[in-house]
Amino acid sequence: MKYVYFFGAGKADGDGEMKDLLGGKGAGLAEMTRIGLPVPSGFTITTETCDFYFKHNRQFPKDLRAEVEKNLKRLENLTKKKLGDAKDPLLVSVRSGSARSMPGMMETILNLGLNDASVAGLARATRNERFAFDAYRRFVQMYSSVVIGLPKDDFESRLRALKKRLGVKDDTEVSAEGWRELIGEYKRYFQEKTGKPFPENPHEQLWGAIGAVFESWMGEKAQTYRRVEKITGLLGTAVNVVQMVYGNTGDDSGTGVCFTRDPSTGEKTFFGDFLLNAQGEDVVAGIRTPMHLGELSKRMPKVYKQLERVRRTLERHYRDMQDLEFTVEHGTLYMLQTRTGKRTPSAAFQIAVDMVDEGLIEVEEALERIKSDDVERLFYPVIDPRMNRAELSSRKVVEGINAVPGAAVGKAVFTAEDAESWAARGEKVILVRHETSPEDVGGMNVAQGILTATGGKTSHAAVVARGWGKCCIVGAEKLDIDLQKKTMSSNGHAVREGEWITLDGSDGSVYGGQIDLIRPEPPKAFYTLLKWADKVRKLGVRTNADTPQDARVAREMGAEGIGLVRTEHMFFKDFEHPEKSGERQLAIQEMILADTSDARKAALAKLLPFQRGDFVGIFKAMDGLPVTIRLLDPPLHEFVPHDPAKQAELARKIGLSPEAVARRVEQLHEANPMLGHRGCRLCITYPEILEMQIRAIIEAAIECQKNKIKVIPEIMHPLTMDKKEMQILDQATRRVADEIIAKAKVKVEYTVGTMIELPRAALLADQIAEVAEFFSFGTNDLTQTTMGLSRDDAGRFLPEYVDERKAGIFTSDPFQTIDEAGVGLLVEWGIERGRKTRPNLKIGICGEHGGDAESVKFCHRVGMDYVSASPFRLGVARLAAAQAVLEERQKDKAKKSRN
Amino acid sequence: MKYVYFFGAGKADGDGEMKDLLGGKGAGLAEMTRIGLPVPSGFTITTETCDFYFKHNRQFPKDLRAEVEKNLKRLENLTKKKLGDAKDPLLVSVRSGSARSMPGMMETILNLGLNDASVAGLARATRNERFAFDAYRRFVQMYSSVVIGLPKDDFESRLRALKKRLGVKDDTEVSAEGWRELIGEYKRYFQEKTGKPFPENPHEQLWGAIGAVFESWMGEKAQTYRRVEKITGLLGTAVNVVQMVYGNTGDDSGTGVCFTRDPSTGEKTFFGDFLLNAQGEDVVAGIRTPMHLGELSKRMPKVYKQLERVRRTLERHYRDMQDLEFTVEHGTLYMLQTRTGKRTPSAAFQIAVDMVDEGLIEVEEALERIKSDDVERLFYPVIDPRMNRAELSSRKVVEGINAVPGAAVGKAVFTAEDAESWAARGEKVILVRHETSPEDVGGMNVAQGILTATGGKTSHAAVVARGWGKCCIVGAEKLDIDLQKKTMSSNGHAVREGEWITLDGSDGSVYGGQIDLIRPEPPKAFYTLLKWADKVRKLGVRTNADTPQDARVAREMGAEGIGLVRTEHMFFKDFEHPEKSGERQLAIQEMILADTSDARKAALAKLLPFQRGDFVGIFKAMDGLPVTIRLLDPPLHEFVPHDPAKQAELARKIGLSPEAVARRVEQLHEANPMLGHRGCRLCITYPEILEMQIRAIIEAAIECQKNKIKVIPEIMHPLTMDKKEMQILDQATRRVADEIIAKAKVKVEYTVGTMIELPRAALLADQIAEVAEFFSFGTNDLTQTTMGLSRDDAGRFLPEYVDERKAGIFTSDPFQTIDEAGVGLLVEWGIERGRKTRPNLKIGICGEHGGDAESVKFCHRVGMDYVSASPFRLGVARLAAAQAVLEERQKDKAKKSRN
Repeated sequence: MKYVYFFGAGKADGDGEMKDLLGGKGAGLAEMTRIGLPVPSGFTITTETCDFYFKHNRQFPKDLRAEVEKNLKRLENLTKKKLGDAKDPLLVSVRSGSARSMPGMMETILNLGLNDASVAGLARATRNERFAFDAYRRFVQMYSSVVIGLPKDDFESRLRALKKRLGVKDDTEVSAEGWRELIGEYKRYFQEKTGKPFPENPHEQLWGAIGAVFESWMGEKAQTYRRVEKITGLLGTAVNVVQMVYGNTGDDSGTGVCFTRDPSTGEKTFFGDFLLNAQGEDVVAGIRTPMHLGELSKRMPKVYKQLERVRRTLERHYRDMQDLEFTVEHGTLYMLQTRTGKRTPSAAFQIAVDMVDEGLIEVEEALERIKSDDVERLFYPVIDPRMNRAELSSRKVVEGINAVPGAAVGKAVFTAEDAESWAARGEKVILVRHETSPEDVGGMNVAQGILTATGGKTSHAAVVARGWGKCCIVGAEKLDIDLQKKTMSSNGHAVREGEWITLDGSDGSVYGGQIDLIRPEPPKAFYTLLKWADKVRKLGVRTNADTPQDARVAREMGAEGIGLVRTEHMFFKDFEHPEKSGERQLAIQEMILADTSDARKAALAKLLPFQRGDFVGIFKAMDGLPVTIRLLDPPLHEFVPHDPAKQAELARKIGLSPEAVARRVEQLHEANPMLGHRGCRLCITYPEILEMQIRAIIEAAIECQKNKIKVIPEIMHPLTMDKKEMQILDQATRRVADEIIAKAKVKVEYTVGTMIELPRAALLADQIAEVAEFFSFGTNDLTQTTMGLSRDDAGRFLPEYVDERKAGIFTSDPFQTIDEAGVGLLVEWGIERGRKTRPNLKIGICGEHGGDAESVKFCHRVGMDYVSASPFRLGVARLAAAQAVLEERQKDKAKKSRN
Repeated sequence: MKYVYFFGAGKADGDGEMKDLLGGKGAGLAEMTRIGLPVPSGFTITTETCDFYFKHNRQFPKDLRAEVEKNLKRLENLTKKKLGDAKDPLLVSVRSGSARSMPGMMETILNLGLNDASVAGLARATRNERFAFDAYRRFVQMYSSVVIGLPKDDFESRLRALKKRLGVKDDTEVSAEGWRELIGEYKRYFQEKTGKPFPENPHEQLWGAIGAVFESWMGEKAQTYRRVEKITGLLGTAVNVVQMVYGNTGDDSGTGVCFTRDPSTGEKTFFGDFLLNAQGEDVVAGIRTPMHLGELSKRMPKVYKQLERVRRTLERHYRDMQDLEFTVEHGTLYMLQTRTGKRTPSAAFQIAVDMVDEGLIEVEEALERIKSDDVERLFYPVIDPRMNRAELSSRKVVEGINAVPGAAVGKAVFTAEDAESWAARGEKVILVRHETSPEDVGGMNVAQGILTATGGKTSHAAVVARGWGKCCIVGAEKLDIDLQKKTMSSNGHAVREGEWITLDGSDGSVYGGQIDLIRPEPPKAFYTLLKWADKVRKLGVRTNADTPQDARVAREMGAEGIGLVRTEHMFFKDFEHPEKSGERQLAIQEMILADTSDARKAALAKLLPFQRGDFVGIFKAMDGLPVTIRLLDPPLHEFVPHDPAKQAELARKIGLSPEAVARRVEQLHEANPMLGHRGCRLCITYPEILEMQIRAIIEAAIECQKNKIKVIPEIMHPLTMDKKEMQILDQATRRVADEIIAKAKVKVEYTVGTMIELPRAALLADQIAEVAEFFSFGTNDLTQTTMGLSRDDAGRFLPEYVDERKAGIFTSDPFQTIDEAGVGLLVEWGIERGRKTRPNLKIGICGEHGGDAESVKFCHRVGMDYVSASPFRLGVARLAAAQAVLEERQKDKAKKSRN
């Protein structure tokens, strides 16, 4: 087992591919050395060594000591300096570095090798006594706190006292003598606290530092970071022992961090900060305001040119935007780190597209590089990142589940009607509810954002909001909402109706007051890249849209049809003429309260023109593209009011007694509405509902066809579970449709299919496909039933199931990313069985998963024809569909090369 | 195609096996003829002819006329009489008869062949003019109404007028002259109504009668009967044309119906009724009181002896109890019908066991003959069948779903507490609720019967009641319950608290008042037969029992262990010390309301001794047999009160504010509790609940082992869906258990397994079986999730799904009989996968299906180790398990004979 990898003088034991073993930093240093960039020499102790350390009760491997000493000797030979040398000592930094970047989470020790003897040597060699003692005091302080664990503050307070005594403000004003005095104090303190003198032996110092870096891997900070960032499967941290170079040796020195392109915009400009006469820590600490990199070209044109070359070399070498650290020591450039640079979503697109144009990468690689999060985050407004964090934190009212990212500002209102009336008079509102129901859709629609006290990421509020790309926080369980007083409170904050609040949907925080937001514009590169994705992908991408307006937006966003029109949304809201929403609601409520089939038909007749009109609008928007219309799905109780006052009002409007209305509402109550009288079961028991809806669809189609609009309606029955059930529905559908078509003498072709959203439907897909012409997997409900999870209630325990620190049973929320092992198995089975019966069965998905990248890839792999996603997730779907193809190609290639 | 089958003079074209073709009556007549019994000659037109008739627009087959005429000629030759003969005419009856008995649902025409000429011949031949004209007027009336469709009443009124004119009361007092006058009137009326004279041609009469019998197959009455009785797959009715014999030709004549054994008790006595000088119709009509069959041995000893021989012959021939019809004409016996006799459940057992003892049938056949309904119905009290139906009907308040058969009488009460307090003072009560919840269990337990306005056959009320064998009617949707006034009303009847009501669980009727019930005793034969079943069956039969008392009863009923202890029932009720139930409830409520893990633990500590005590009792009762204990399963909200008054009371008791209690209850509310925070999810989030329960189980086991009671505990985690979840539960279980066992130094062996009640668990059974040592299929919940059906809500539409007259999508309620196609597929998959991982995996079922005969057979076929049923359904399970083996043997035999 080789524990130590050397690099220096253009050669390196390791290389850039060895991130897992050498950590990102170590691999970068090795690679930069190999390709001839100016890198200080040193060696890297592997992550495997760290792993060994923790697996063997914090013992180093037997051979490590000899290996380190051998490499140290090599370093001394190369630099022609010796550790602890009293004349011109070798000084090293000892840095952590794991395979995944964990900024600031682990330890670093600089200037190692200084002691009372070598500090003099350093002073001599640099001809700068002040610098040498400054370095020494830094080292003593760092070593004492990091390696020994003495409180940092005890050193800081001594430094403050010294400066007070000297009557100076800035560290730079302290003289060599001052530092020497402080070092004396530090050492006395050290002796006092530890009972031992400060270690003068640099080898002892080195081993202490190596151990301290390893220890920091298991530090609380680092462990928490890994949990939060879901970083798993790493061996540990590497330790990089590198010759020190100094940026703080005068005005021909300095240090900087830079990005090879602008990480905010992706623009191809050299972007970074530089501090003259400073060490790297000073840039990070933000004590002095750095200068822009451009300034360097004026101050040190030679160095700048060299850096420009490095930039080009590294970009060409890594074929991606790099994040660099460098130091200039007396006019000599040293590269200290290179790694793939983090970037904003917008920059990610820009860089990917530019690099294709530049010939640096292929289109395929550009597609692979974009993460679905990038697409999603592109569209959401965010809290201005310049906002003061401490102030923000003091304003926090409560935290919930970050259901839909982005941010929103508005005045708190507590009912959907209030939301609508406030919005009607031009107010921006945030709708705050215990939970939302379809009744609230109007209010949700006009709100800037939605906050609920219950529910999970796929509760009603979350799903509806996500469809609109609207900021939404759910499951803020600690929130007390008082509907009577119209207040909410938590955490000592109370918010009354009309007071401003701000939601940060990216992390689930709710703040009091109005906080500035920024809404990003998707760059052109976004559209370019998605067009490339379209050329690669095989999966069709449709949208879920319930209104002509949604349909138009979605078409612009690249939808190739509608995969799901939820007809019930039309019953609540007239999206084109909001003032008419009341009529629709009343008609559906009359229908539900009807005692007889005739009364029901009369009420349905009132709904017919509304639905037909909506369908005409949707068909027009989708001219030439397929439109899948799902018939009425939710349980009827969702359409009627539950509080006595509203029931009385409704009773008055439709001429019934309040008792009769209350009784009917009570009758509609279900213990488990999710498993109740809903979906196609409504049309089985009330065929007149089916009849009206089919009539609306077909009459709209005829009207459009007459106006030369090409209509491809796909009529979809929800929640079927049996062939005979499907037969009854299919026959009823065709009877009504064919009669209308025959009368109108206009050619309208339609298909009849079903959602597959119950395990039984998937299991018996072969039988159901004898009747159904298409399947659309409703994986929201399929997940609920397969896993026995109510998405409205899962907030109580599902977070624990997903949280790795707790039960950690699932790796992700099964309502966000399809549970491939369980639900996915049923989907695969359903597809296979369905196509066995009907080889040309058209198969799609219309659940939330249709807009989730991992799930879209799954849909590709199992052979679906299309996915359907809400308009704002179409980009995610289009990209993921392309990535699925690329992943498949990779696998095929790997397979071929194995054979 | 042969349409007509002749029988007569000891020979017959058909035989007893040809029921489908000749109908039950025709096949019986042919068979009796063949085996030499005295049967009047005749012929049968096949059911295929009827099928042809309706499939060809009510046309007879081309060849039918010739075939009928040929057979009629044969009959005339045999009887030496001619149809319509003026001297000694042949008269025939024309009777319906399908493969399944449909008593009174189809038509019959008697005395066919009479006209003005032949009536004189009949008078001459019988030397009884009055008899001849009586027969003639009966024929004219019957023909006119049945074949032509004239209103019966128009004939009856003319008969009444005649008797008034003659000044007589009884038909028997009318002279030949009187009948002749009436015949004249009938014929004039016939001419007037139809414009044609009454048909004198007996061949025309015959064809009219044949057509009328066919038509009656599609009569409304018959169609309704078939729907209600679920009679499907029949071709139609046969038509039996048989020489008339007369029981009303004097005191050496008569007619009777009899059973070869007592159909009520199964006793081996000749049982029946006989009327002297009467026709068959008179017995059925019940106009005169018949004499017991024994009387016949005195009046006509020769005939009686002959009948006794017929009885023995037929029993030996058919190897089953027969239901016979016969007529004696001038001392000559004629057998008119034989068919397998209907019998009470009690008689079914008695006869089956007796026939084995008599060597008539084998044990296997005895087992096959008993239907699961017979077992079930054996135990239920029933409304006294002598009760006047009209009076009953006038008392009906409402109808619901017949969830648990049997009947119950009690005073209506509307809360579980009222039920308990009323019962405590010795009152018999019926508990009437909108729906029941586990809180109501105490009240349900003391009630005679349970009535709910909502829910289906597997709602909480139905399931709990079925477990106790307690009469229960659910889903009486038309019932208005006013909890404030404590009244219920429907159908114009109002019932106040304390008023008597009677439930008939066999048909779902609810009556006002106290109606007499009869509770049958299972005969010894029942126990004999079940012992035989035990020898045959391979499937183990366990019971679901939650209390020591249930366990004892179940063991007496043959349970071989407990397949399901629902620990939550112990939280509501102390079944051994009912007065202590309050303490338990309070402790569980305290646990639920606890804010911190410590408070929760303190409350759980109070529950521990109760649970431990119950387990000790159960282990004792099951000494040496396995006991499967399911940990806490229902959502916590089921344990806390929902109305403010009770919440306030609870708050007072445990020292919290009413608001705090209300808030916690509100927090526990779930949109779909069935898919919510329940099952093992409770122990994942609150490990202390698991710990207390394991402690109670293991400590009880140790206590029992110390007292030489052999304990075989199987610890079962409900609602798992993932291997990792199961691992967490398994490890927690073993950690607690092993620690207690180690400390006690007593050997206790236990196993840890899981319910499989979610589709995902079945799908991933191979993975779960890596941890679980046994599976118990919870097919109640598996049905709910696989089919997306809430059993508490399914009453709204499931009846329509099951009702053949409506959607008819399922052949039976999937909560009663397992849905083999869908849910069954998952069960099979789960078993196969589970055993792949762990070949010796013990597998059972503990849902309601474990007590349903068809489902038990399914469990046998898919290779389960045992079924678990509620105590009162153990008989059903034991028998069905045996029948499953016999069915398998039959199939194997059939397979072998094919090869």
